[in-house]
Amino acid sequence: MSYYRKFLWAFCLFVCFQLPVQADPGYKLWLQYAPIEDARERDSYRVFFSQIQVMGHSDTDAVIRKELQLAGSGFFPGDDFSSVGESADPKIWIGKVSLLPNSVASAQADKLASLSEDGYALFALEGRVFVTSNTEIGLLYGTFGLLKAIQTRQPLTSLEVLENPKIQTRMLNHWDNLNRTVERGYAGFSIWNWHRLPKHIDQQYIDYARANASIGINATSITNVNANALVLTPVYLEKAAALADAFRPYGIKVFLTARFNAPMQLDGLETADPLDPAVREWWKKKADEIYRYIPDFGGFLVKADSEGQPGPHNYGRTQADGANALAEALEPHGGLVMWRAFVYSENTPTDRTKQAFDEFKPLDGKFNDNVIVQVKNGPLDFQPREPFHPLFGAMPETPLMMEFQITKEYLGQDTHWVNLASMWEEVLQADTYAKGAGSTVSNVLDGSLHGYRHTAIAGVANIGTDRNWTGHPMAQGDWYSFGRLAWNPDADIREIAEDWLKMTFTNDPSFVDPVVDVMMKSHEILVDYMTPLGLHHIMARSHHWGPGPWVTGGRRDDWTATYYHRASEDGIGFDRTESGSNALEQYAPEVRNQWRNPDNISLDYLLWFHRVAWDKKLSTGNTLWEEMALRYQRGVEGARWMEQTWLALDGRIDEAMFEHMRSFLAIQVSEAEWWRDACLLYFQQFSQQPLPAGVEAAAHDLEYYQGFRRFFVPGI
Amino acid sequence: MSYYRKFLWAFCLFVCFQLPVQADPGYKLWLQYAPIEDARERDSYRVFFSQIQVMGHSDTDAVIRKELQLAGSGFFPGDDFSSVGESADPKIWIGKVSLLPNSVASAQADKLASLSEDGYALFALEGRVFVTSNTEIGLLYGTFGLLKAIQTRQPLTSLEVLENPKIQTRMLNHWDNLNRTVERGYAGFSIWNWHRLPKHIDQQYIDYARANASIGINATSITNVNANALVLTPVYLEKAAALADAFRPYGIKVFLTARFNAPMQLDGLETADPLDPAVREWWKKKADEIYRYIPDFGGFLVKADSEGQPGPHNYGRTQADGANALAEALEPHGGLVMWRAFVYSENTPTDRTKQAFDEFKPLDGKFNDNVIVQVKNGPLDFQPREPFHPLFGAMPETPLMMEFQITKEYLGQDTHWVNLASMWEEVLQADTYAKGAGSTVSNVLDGSLHGYRHTAIAGVANIGTDRNWTGHPMAQGDWYSFGRLAWNPDADIREIAEDWLKMTFTNDPSFVDPVVDVMMKSHEILVDYMTPLGLHHIMARSHHWGPGPWVTGGRRDDWTATYYHRASEDGIGFDRTESGSNALEQYAPEVRNQWRNPDNISLDYLLWFHRVAWDKKLSTGNTLWEEMALRYQRGVEGARWMEQTWLALDGRIDEAMFEHMRSFLAIQVSEAEWWRDACLLYFQQFSQQPLPAGVEAAAHDLEYYQGFRRFFVPGI
Repeated sequence: MSYYRKFLWAFCLFVCFQLPVQADPGYKLWLQYAPIEDARERDSYRVFFSQIQVMGHSDTDAVIRKELQLAGSGFFPGDDFSSVGESADPKIWIGKVSLLPNSVASAQADKLASLSEDGYALFALEGRVFVTSNTEIGLLYGTFGLLKAIQTRQPLTSLEVLENPKIQTRMLNHWDNLNRTVERGYAGFSIWNWHRLPKHIDQQYIDYARANASIGINATSITNVNANALVLTPVYLEKAAALADAFRPYGIKVFLTARFNAPMQLDGLETADPLDPAVREWWKKKADEIYRYIPDFGGFLVKADSEGQPGPHNYGRTQADGANALAEALEPHGGLVMWRAFVYSENTPTDRTKQAFDEFKPLDGKFNDNVIVQVKNGPLDFQPREPFHPLFGAMPETPLMMEFQITKEYLGQDTHWVNLASMWEEVLQADTYAKGAGSTVSNVLDGSLHGYRHTAIAGVANIGTDRNWTGHPMAQGDWYSFGRLAWNPDADIREIAEDWLKMTFTNDPSFVDPVVDVMMKSHEILVDYMTPLGLHHIMARSHHWGPGPWVTGGRRDDWTATYYHRASEDGIGFDRTESGSNALEQYAPEVRNQWRNPDNISLDYLLWFHRVAWDKKLSTGNTLWEEMALRYQRGVEGARWMEQTWLALDGRIDEAMFEHMRSFLAIQVSEAEWWRDACLLYFQQFSQQPLPAGVEAAAHDLEYYQGFRRFFVPGI
Repeated sequence: MSYYRKFLWAFCLFVCFQLPVQADPGYKLWLQYAPIEDARERDSYRVFFSQIQVMGHSDTDAVIRKELQLAGSGFFPGDDFSSVGESADPKIWIGKVSLLPNSVASAQADKLASLSEDGYALFALEGRVFVTSNTEIGLLYGTFGLLKAIQTRQPLTSLEVLENPKIQTRMLNHWDNLNRTVERGYAGFSIWNWHRLPKHIDQQYIDYARANASIGINATSITNVNANALVLTPVYLEKAAALADAFRPYGIKVFLTARFNAPMQLDGLETADPLDPAVREWWKKKADEIYRYIPDFGGFLVKADSEGQPGPHNYGRTQADGANALAEALEPHGGLVMWRAFVYSENTPTDRTKQAFDEFKPLDGKFNDNVIVQVKNGPLDFQPREPFHPLFGAMPETPLMMEFQITKEYLGQDTHWVNLASMWEEVLQADTYAKGAGSTVSNVLDGSLHGYRHTAIAGVANIGTDRNWTGHPMAQGDWYSFGRLAWNPDADIREIAEDWLKMTFTNDPSFVDPVVDVMMKSHEILVDYMTPLGLHHIMARSHHWGPGPWVTGGRRDDWTATYYHRASEDGIGFDRTESGSNALEQYAPEVRNQWRNPDNISLDYLLWFHRVAWDKKLSTGNTLWEEMALRYQRGVEGARWMEQTWLALDGRIDEAMFEHMRSFLAIQVSEAEWWRDACLLYFQQFSQQPLPAGVEAAAHDLEYYQGFRRFFVPGI
């Protein structure tokens, strides 16, 4: 029988590895639940998995059972999981803390006492594994934690996990329009098929909810911040409610974007002045109406007074006035207003990066209790590298939430491989010095620094109709990492990357190790070939695909490259010190001291804060021009190294996936060269110096790169 | 060992039926290659499948081997097909006729002699199965024929198949724009990701080619007939060439749509007059350029002088002048011009359905040898039911090709289940009487009636980014049926439906039989609840979703419903007899005789050709009003019967697929009711008679239906 079983399993595994040839590579994300190959491991996990008890019978418990069934059928093909969760003598017990056997509860009293809402504990005791939480959703998170432990081959018998989410609201922002285009979307079109809603709930909506719940995401704003007021009408509320119903068992709340002048657009009010009583009444009635459709509606996400969106400025009111009018309407229902700080003047300012701070800092403490101000990671706009936003640490009386961009508007869009977690970690771990050393951005966000009543974090989704959800196969990892960092902004990003790779591809270290290595270096490589030394916003106009350091003129100066790099024969860079815009003043003194001196600022931020002569000697021993050229070259070589690393992995994963990555890496290498060549040729006009040794000459002249015509670039 | 094997297979099947839970339902189309459940059948097929020899080593032979590998791994999970096609002692032999063993060739001499280009023979001889053809592509078709035989459980030992395509060019027309929207597309967006081309060849392009080759489609026009001239520039030609390279081993030629004024738009010529020498020279150079990118480029598909597209009318030239200018340029390279007959005046005519005939009939014989005129199935525009287009049979000197619409612009778009093959068959089998009885449209198309030098058929594709390709799961069957009817326009549509269901879902007759039954009745049901009795073009304006019999006014009268139904208190219908527009005159006398008399014309065409009083007694014994109301009601009841039939199939197929269909059928029933209620309330204003017994009253009043607001309807 032992031989027979061995044969059977070998056979079965063969079957399972055969099938993916025709399967859709990538759709299952990190929830692959691939068969466990090692017989000993498989047997040891099976002992547990074959005897599971799920205590509850709510919708969420049904979801837990379904997930266990799916996972079991994947891990142990051939086993019958049709009645999973019904074991009377469980080896895995999943239930609320209040239902734990007394002996277990007292043995784990300390741990259980420290469980926060939706947190969970996973532990082994007397040969059993317990998954417990104070809430149903916590049990779902715990179940996904258990499945991750199996997917990454942790031994269950020594499990000791206590996971409390550090941030309350962990959310995706979809910049999805009602016509299904996605602003800054590079993975096809919107997965929300509004036309078929509310009657048709696509399986993909369920799989979306599963994937998000598996990484702790508990909120989603489903429409673009450049908002269409139609979404607040009954026709669309009914559709949004159908999505909310589908997401509810997974613990995901729906938010909508509110167009500030909706009272005028939808009902013909003569004003949208937030202090006008009729306007306030309109929002109250609208909120009441929305909650009739969606009883647990999350609230509004608002982009106001920015890039053409209407807002309180139109009526001479403050951002607090605007936010509070909506907050007042949501308050009786427990809804939140997430009010974006990405506000900038209709007139070109001397330094756009200063505006949010100047506008919001004086309003600290003036927002209603259910308002959170949503701040982008840096003061400009999701560049490959920016210093952290100066509002973090500067608003002790107003909850701030982070807005990261998971979609890669400025970081290679659909075809470049860059692990965004590296960039996010840099910001999260930055020290604001708001309350002395150690006042990290992560401590602002998790509320520990200022005692915020609400904490939240948002990522602009990178999800679309592409068959693998995210266009670039590796961009799935950005979605995953965002979820993990939203749960714990201090989490180890290498560990996150390893978990994701193991769950998505294979536990084989000969694949995981080199790929993690690429991921950890990928952000630095991209910054090198796009915007080294603190350069920013030098990409092509409007669609932002590819280099455009020559972009100048047009509607607004602060939408051009020359506004930001200011290159001339004298030098390059934006002086944000006292001698310039003094944006530096918005940071704490300790931060200013790090950055104010061009001789000892990190070269990573040099040209963000300083204007520097081309022949200035840097700490590396190179002149500025040499350092710039060498970094661009280093970036190209980094991209080539990424490609070579990947090519060496042929045969280790699904063929179609391998090929997909191969072609994208070829594009990445050629676009890295494009960036290097275009930027160096352009800046060389000002530096008037030759390329240093080791830097490859461009294949074309500057005119070629400037004249390169692009059509129908995605995402706009 | 026998028990062991049995167990092993039972086990294995269990595995395979478990896995689809998480798989993408629908992506594999009819190429599921599901495991063969019955042990005896499986063993008998395996005897053959385990010993296959593929004789050639071309790119197409590589494709054949890969398909066999995929199919084998599906049919016989666990078997090793890594070296499939290399058997030295084959039970299945796949090779060209010229390589057949002499004994086989002489035994099958008659059959082999009758093989046309790309035709194939499949036969068993002395315990072996032979797949043979004169061409590589014919071998690929033969291989798919073999796989279909297995998928539909035909015994191989008695195989006797001779398949010659009756039509030379069997093509899809994609109305896909370069920005990836799809005109009249209801399955998401364009699968062509132009931005990632040419470097990234998505696996979906390969799977597209496989699916098309499996049903004999050998040409594709990849851009919208409402054309953007950009596609003729090098940037896009390079991308189109990459697709052509991917499709070539599958025998699929790429066509592009040519914008008639491209010489002006792209190169600043002052005219696009087809008789201007500079214009002719421009097209010649452009053709030369295109063939440098795509050596086997198929040619141009052109929509001219229609709905805003430029054309020869702009220069006072004929459609023949226009077509010939392009044909002359393509001729040296062997390319074709497919020139659409869907031309209609910029000014509203007395009867739009007459225009194509009036314009093209006088040009018969005036087109160059490499021009084919592409004619829609009916004289108006893809309505749920139209009489056949009067040009068929009327152009003996000019090859005509058929244009069917596979995408369901007027037939329920994404959410209605209607088997289009029924409608197509009605047209294909219609008798033009061009050369006496039996001069069917199919005989016009296959060239047998007039001896056309070129034969072709096109279907407007229903393919998009939806995870199942076609939005509606059953719309895959329309793609499949189109391919089969393109290969043989006289094929049996019930057999086609059965083959498709077996390959896509299951061979289980308890599923196949009721579903075929629904499919065979679905078209009549849809006509009943949308446009009974010959009504046409009474749908909503512009997007055409849902009823709009009240649509009137606007830019053109012939884009309104009232232009076509002409309802008043006196009656309803468009008089196209001698007393009216006399469109009837465009048909052969025998056809005219069938249709000229309102007392004996088929009720299916009554209001297409006649204006009829509300109280006229029809052959059914009902008045016109009663008959109309009863047919609307019958349509609704038909839709409900379809839904009930489906609901009874729960558990027989994949759960997600079942649920998808369930929700779509719920939509179909409610939209059938919407059509009935809106149309009957509207027409009742004129008939001023009560609903006959058995017809359900509307849930709302007419104002409600007329005021129903629709936003962002797909496909425009």
